[in-house]
Amino acid sequence: MPEPLTSSAPETGQSLAQEYRRTRDLTESLVEPLSDADATIQSMEDASPAKWHLAHTTWFWETFLLRDFARDYTLFDDDWPFLFNSYYEAEGERIARFSRGLLSRPTLDEIREWRAHVDDAMEPILDDPAHAELVTLGIAHEQQHIELLLTDIKHALFQNPLGPAMWSGAPARAESRELGWHEHPGGVALIGHDGEGFAFDNEGPRHRVLLEPFALADRLVTNAEWQEFIDDGGYRNARLWLSDGWAWVKEQGAEAPLYWRSAESGADHFTHQGWQTRDPNAPVTHISYFEADAYASWAGKRLPTEFEWEAIARGQHGEGNAPAHDPAGGNQLDGAEPPQPAGSDGLFGDCWQFTRSGYLPYPRFQPAAGAVGEYNGKFMSGQFVLKGASCATVRGHSRASYRNFFYPHQQWQFTGLRLAKDL
Amino acid sequence: MPEPLTSSAPETGQSLAQEYRRTRDLTESLVEPLSDADATIQSMEDASPAKWHLAHTTWFWETFLLRDFARDYTLFDDDWPFLFNSYYEAEGERIARFSRGLLSRPTLDEIREWRAHVDDAMEPILDDPAHAELVTLGIAHEQQHIELLLTDIKHALFQNPLGPAMWSGAPARAESRELGWHEHPGGVALIGHDGEGFAFDNEGPRHRVLLEPFALADRLVTNAEWQEFIDDGGYRNARLWLSDGWAWVKEQGAEAPLYWRSAESGADHFTHQGWQTRDPNAPVTHISYFEADAYASWAGKRLPTEFEWEAIARGQHGEGNAPAHDPAGGNQLDGAEPPQPAGSDGLFGDCWQFTRSGYLPYPRFQPAAGAVGEYNGKFMSGQFVLKGASCATVRGHSRASYRNFFYPHQQWQFTGLRLAKDL
Amino acid sequence: MPEPLTSSAPETGQSLAQEYRRTRDLTESLVEPLSDADATIQSMEDASPAKWHLAHTTWFWETFLLRDFARDYTLFDDDWPFLFNSYYEAEGERIARFSRGLLSRPTLDEIREWRAHVDDAMEPILDDPAHAELVTLGIAHEQQHIELLLTDIKHALFQNPLGPAMWSGAPARAESRELGWHEHPGGVALIGHDGEGFAFDNEGPRHRVLLEPFALADRLVTNAEWQEFIDDGGYRNARLWLSDGWAWVKEQGAEAPLYWRSAESGADHFTHQGWQTRDPNAPVTHISYFEADAYASWAGKRLPTEFEWEAIARGQHGEGNAPAHDPAGGNQLDGAEPPQPAGSDGLFGDCWQFTRSGYLPYPRFQPAAGAVGEYNGKFMSGQFVLKGASCATVRGHSRASYRNFFYPHQQWQFTGLRLAKDL
Amino acid sequence: MPEPLTSSAPETGQSLAQEYRRTRDLTESLVEPLSDADATIQSMEDASPAKWHLAHTTWFWETFLLRDFARDYTLFDDDWPFLFNSYYEAEGERIARFSRGLLSRPTLDEIREWRAHVDDAMEPILDDPAHAELVTLGIAHEQQHIELLLTDIKHALFQNPLGPAMWSGAPARAESRELGWHEHPGGVALIGHDGEGFAFDNEGPRHRVLLEPFALADRLVTNAEWQEFIDDGGYRNARLWLSDGWAWVKEQGAEAPLYWRSAESGADHFTHQGWQTRDPNAPVTHISYFEADAYASWAGKRLPTEFEWEAIARGQHGEGNAPAHDPAGGNQLDGAEPPQPAGSDGLFGDCWQFTRSGYLPYPRFQPAAGAVGEYNGKFMSGQFVLKGASCATVRGHSRASYRNFFYPHQQWQFTGLRLAKDL
Repeated sequence: MPEPLTSSAPETGQSLAQEYRRTRDLTESLVEPLSDADATIQSMEDASPAKWHLAHTTWFWETFLLRDFARDYTLFDDDWPFLFNSYYEAEGERIARFSRGLLSRPTLDEIREWRAHVDDAMEPILDDPAHAELVTLGIAHEQQHIELLLTDIKHALFQNPLGPAMWSGAPARAESRELGWHEHPGGVALIGHDGEGFAFDNEGPRHRVLLEPFALADRLVTNAEWQEFIDDGGYRNARLWLSDGWAWVKEQGAEAPLYWRSAESGADHFTHQGWQTRDPNAPVTHISYFEADAYASWAGKRLPTEFEWEAIARGQHGEGNAPAHDPAGGNQLDGAEPPQPAGSDGLFGDCWQFTRSGYLPYPRFQPAAGAVGEYNGKFMSGQFVLKGASCATVRGHSRASYRNFFYPHQQWQFTGLRLAKDL
Repeated sequence: MPEPLTSSAPETGQSLAQEYRRTRDLTESLVEPLSDADATIQSMEDASPAKWHLAHTTWFWETFLLRDFARDYTLFDDDWPFLFNSYYEAEGERIARFSRGLLSRPTLDEIREWRAHVDDAMEPILDDPAHAELVTLGIAHEQQHIELLLTDIKHALFQNPLGPAMWSGAPARAESRELGWHEHPGGVALIGHDGEGFAFDNEGPRHRVLLEPFALADRLVTNAEWQEFIDDGGYRNARLWLSDGWAWVKEQGAEAPLYWRSAESGADHFTHQGWQTRDPNAPVTHISYFEADAYASWAGKRLPTEFEWEAIARGQHGEGNAPAHDPAGGNQLDGAEPPQPAGSDGLFGDCWQFTRSGYLPYPRFQPAAGAVGEYNGKFMSGQFVLKGASCATVRGHSRASYRNFFYPHQQWQFTGLRLAKDL
Repeated sequence: MPEPLTSSAPETGQSLAQEYRRTRDLTESLVEPLSDADATIQSMEDASPAKWHLAHTTWFWETFLLRDFARDYTLFDDDWPFLFNSYYEAEGERIARFSRGLLSRPTLDEIREWRAHVDDAMEPILDDPAHAELVTLGIAHEQQHIELLLTDIKHALFQNPLGPAMWSGAPARAESRELGWHEHPGGVALIGHDGEGFAFDNEGPRHRVLLEPFALADRLVTNAEWQEFIDDGGYRNARLWLSDGWAWVKEQGAEAPLYWRSAESGADHFTHQGWQTRDPNAPVTHISYFEADAYASWAGKRLPTEFEWEAIARGQHGEGNAPAHDPAGGNQLDGAEPPQPAGSDGLFGDCWQFTRSGYLPYPRFQPAAGAVGEYNGKFMSGQFVLKGASCATVRGHSRASYRNFFYPHQQWQFTGLRLAKDL
Repeated sequence: MPEPLTSSAPETGQSLAQEYRRTRDLTESLVEPLSDADATIQSMEDASPAKWHLAHTTWFWETFLLRDFARDYTLFDDDWPFLFNSYYEAEGERIARFSRGLLSRPTLDEIREWRAHVDDAMEPILDDPAHAELVTLGIAHEQQHIELLLTDIKHALFQNPLGPAMWSGAPARAESRELGWHEHPGGVALIGHDGEGFAFDNEGPRHRVLLEPFALADRLVTNAEWQEFIDDGGYRNARLWLSDGWAWVKEQGAEAPLYWRSAESGADHFTHQGWQTRDPNAPVTHISYFEADAYASWAGKRLPTEFEWEAIARGQHGEGNAPAHDPAGGNQLDGAEPPQPAGSDGLFGDCWQFTRSGYLPYPRFQPAAGAVGEYNGKFMSGQFVLKGASCATVRGHSRASYRNFFYPHQQWQFTGLRLAKDL
């Protein structure tokens, strides 16, 4: 999901001002372990420097709120909006995406000063109902960038042969658990956001979809199961793969999920805590759509559609937009801690779950007007929908109607796999 | 649609043997105007040499029928199967796709001899009911390659600054016609092939889809209308484009459909009859999905879904799989003639019509077993569905459930645009 | 040597008119075995289609002689000069080099008609002394393209898995021969053309060069010797290679000369006569400068400079510009026959010989004026000088002062290696 | 000059230990203005991060001296040698060159600690005559990296739209000065290092070269003169350019030296002091060989050979290897100051001067043995020799026999142009 712009409904019972502060503080606390240099580097075009995320989210507040609505607001720096706009064509030129990693200036500390400057200016208008919609959107936008910041810096640190850890310690281990199935009889399901509370424009309008009887797995595929797939020649059998997927395998020389390494001293993988032994019972993560689809073929199952997934989520959790929508407790981000999928019970957490649904407009979908509308609709080609949430998603950010989306070759998000089958 | 393998129901009232001969003869008559060199060149990776199409369709009969079922059949040449396999991983190694244009040997005449050899060997088994299914598939497969042959050679000749014509003469002119709308009240529609007669595996299973009320244009967008889009800055306004589409525009320097040229002496475009003046009333063609989507945005309309299109087609023509399914008469291929969109009335003809539906599996879809099953399912990522037929589609080849598919940047097929809107 | 333009001194005792006809006939007789399609394909950017060579050499006569000097001459076709100009910026736009292989029209027969048309028009002016200089240049130019035609078509046919042969039969075998040395005491040598007879501008002016004592091998390195280099890990030992050469080895996966194959039934290589067993006593050929340099390092020797080579050649053959300059008889092209290095005795023949001299201007060098001057001087960066002649060089075309030049990675010419050492 | 390894003769009258300390201190003082992030980024494959230069020069001392000769020396960090080796294949694997800019760890401060650790360990052996040769080489090596550090960081800061300055202030202005000529009568010149004092292996052996009469300009081409070349269409006239140069112009869209900008408020260019107005009388710099050669063609002059340049230098300054070899005072690096070409009098200073000599081995050249020998000889293909020194060359580092070398397209060094002509 390339930097979508949005507004998470703060389903936390807090005031908007509280939610603003919680989110802004979380962003900053997550970069505490990073040096100026760590926050500057960019490992690939899909990723952005941590510093850039800090600045871009700040640019959002300045551009869409302060510049228009804060009395006598002065830009912190006249040149920075150009540097930290992302893809809003309406808001002027941007620098080439892959040059972001060359911006050693402004420094991390200067960006922090900018953040403080903007936070101060935001205070008077945070509780003004006239701006509630934009503030909500800005919070959701910043929460999305929190997840990207975490996955981007992981990818950047991974490039370093020293394997630097962003946090110390080691992840907790998961329990082994039998796979069960959530069954669904089919019929007409209501899909999409109902208009209550915040949602992105791409989650609506709510509409009816006809489903055939199906079942959805009650947990994610694990590292141990993925190892069986590898051991059975999964990455060498063209028959299991989509045509584009097989081309990708050959071009990449892919033979395991991103971040896996067959160390001499046991299987390990790269995490925010450096190189760690893989937990066989933890959900497999950092897989592409191509890999997820090939695994499902190998397992004699398939990926769910986004509608099937949402129907189960609503069955389990009602409307699914309530704060406590996943009491079973998937791993989500609660603070400045290393994100790592650990259990695999909850629908909302641990890993984003691939669906076989293309990321396309719902019936009667209309993009929002103005510059803030330039973010979801225009990505509707070539990508797939993912549902749920991951261990790097700020708790409270997701809901049953949430539609995340990525290209089928991308692996650097906390993506995972929940199987489905026909009944 | 990269060389899909299929079997068109011969909806022509002819026996399978007659249909076999009609199709094989058509292939050969289409290359009559070509020299050995014309038939050898390859202009891009998406296209294949004409000679290759002649050979590959022949390889199909030899590999899937003669080798297995013809008593004492001898391969015409032991090395050629390797050269003319396309993408059936199960059938052995292939040469790199873009090296096809370097095969000056075997010659066009040698390929013709191979065709005659195979046709002779096919005669005794053409009417054997035991092979009817494979023969039907082989005919459909060859008909698909006829369309590709025509679009590929057009692209190859276009590269030549001399602008060589494959046929002489000039296309007929179309009448101007007001745009009207086919309205649909919404509700449950039956989608997909019903199992009667031939269809590709990707057209089924038949299933129910819920539609919202909508309307589908009763003709295609014309060259004159497209010129208005250009004149209004359509190719320079990022807001109209999908994000990937805008990147494509900038990378390609796109400012008009493929084959358009602003000649000093009037607007013209490249055709199988060389450079010709564009007919303002003829449907615009050779546009990408990106262009179609941008135009629809500019026009305040949208693309239809594949389900909407099919529902209208069935409403107009009943099941739509009957031979006379489009009495209004869209332009299709009836013989060795230059294909050119001329009118724009029929749903089935002139141009393939983009839908906003991703090319994805229908509920309970299963690929066919064996090597012949390696063709439709494995392309289900990143592409869009097109409906109808084009002026280069062999008449009788298409039907309401037919799903053609291409990547959103591809332009070299006879692709066009039929608008839709919500009601 | 990318299509240099020049004029070989016809050292054959023939009149210019006779030499013109001999050369033109030779060009045409060499393409006798080729079909229109063979003559159309282009295997890489460095190579051109055979048809293109036939046309380009004809364009030369039309552009530089007939258009200016033939009374009432009419262009054979107005569009063809654009198609068949090569790199003379002064003579107008050209099509992109790698699109040459898409020109199925004009046909091979049409090009032959053009050649006849031009030959007829040339007859009256062939013996006119006023044009002798340009005619001589045109003959040399066409002789250079004969060599390129032969090496380009070899590369094109090599791409075909069928391994088509252009001529039948098999090459003669060479005798094994001990390596001896031509010694030279050093001192001042006269280098470059003396102004008698034809030479390219880059061969002069004649000037003095100081040499240190050295020796030049009296034969070329053989296939058997190269095999030892391979067996000793030559392609896997970075220490033997230039830095750019080692990068080239890794990028190409190079492990043998171009055209070598380790067939199960014995070592073979691709030739104009198809796949043939390699002759261990024949000179190794189709090696890059990088390979030649690495071999010399491995052998504890070095490449000669162009000055050393020329000094030996003059010592052996006097001025070396006489027709019989190499009585020992290196293999050169005498007619429409398969070129293949066989012996290795003569300095002038079998393979072009790499020198360690960069292709740079001699003191007081000035490019010729006008469009015909746009060919040698402008290539003076990044290339190395080769001396002698190859089995594909028209006999009479070379001389001691001749400077051939290629980039250090190129392999598709008949390049070989003659070692040198310090004394 | 891709990170050549060498040893500058400390022509400063200082002891080796003093010269070691002066050089090490200079390196560190030059990065004083840089943040950790500034020192981490890498703008292109040809450049390295400042931090990398600090580390790599330290790796040199550790690898070639301390590890072998310092009693009980302990590596500062076991993993760092892998990170900071450059291209010594013999010393083990290296990380891909363009990944250097992703090494946010170790930090700049950690590298400084490493430097201090190594400097402490070096102290006892600095004055040991047994190591004098390697210490001299290490000093020269570090001085070369000082120049690269300065040119690499300039290129990196240039990528930033903010145009950050590394130093404040503005450069001094130069005087306008008529062009004069150093004439030379030709004859035998002694070229190459005489063996007294330190020199790189590629500077020898000394040998005789025959020169024709020529003249060398007594100053460099200026910005004002270069502007005339531009105004006269120099970048749009193919006839002035080498073939590879013209391809480079078109591919790059080149229309001025690197770092030039046509600001609305007057011509300016990027410097270590940020964007500054160009001084018309200062030497033009940051030009490629292609540009230098095209300018010389336009001016009706030519580039000198390396031998001509050296002959003049020896005529002006005797052996030219004495400390005061250029009393006229070209701009060289004397401390932690912004390098900027200002005057244009001295042969040794302001800008490296292109010669038309390929970077090739001198007669009887032999690379040094062992890993330290892997640096000069292996670059001898495709590059050109530059003579003199630049404003970023540590004073005392250069000499008349010094051979710098770059590829003809490279611009990011302080390269300039001194014309020559025949007499």
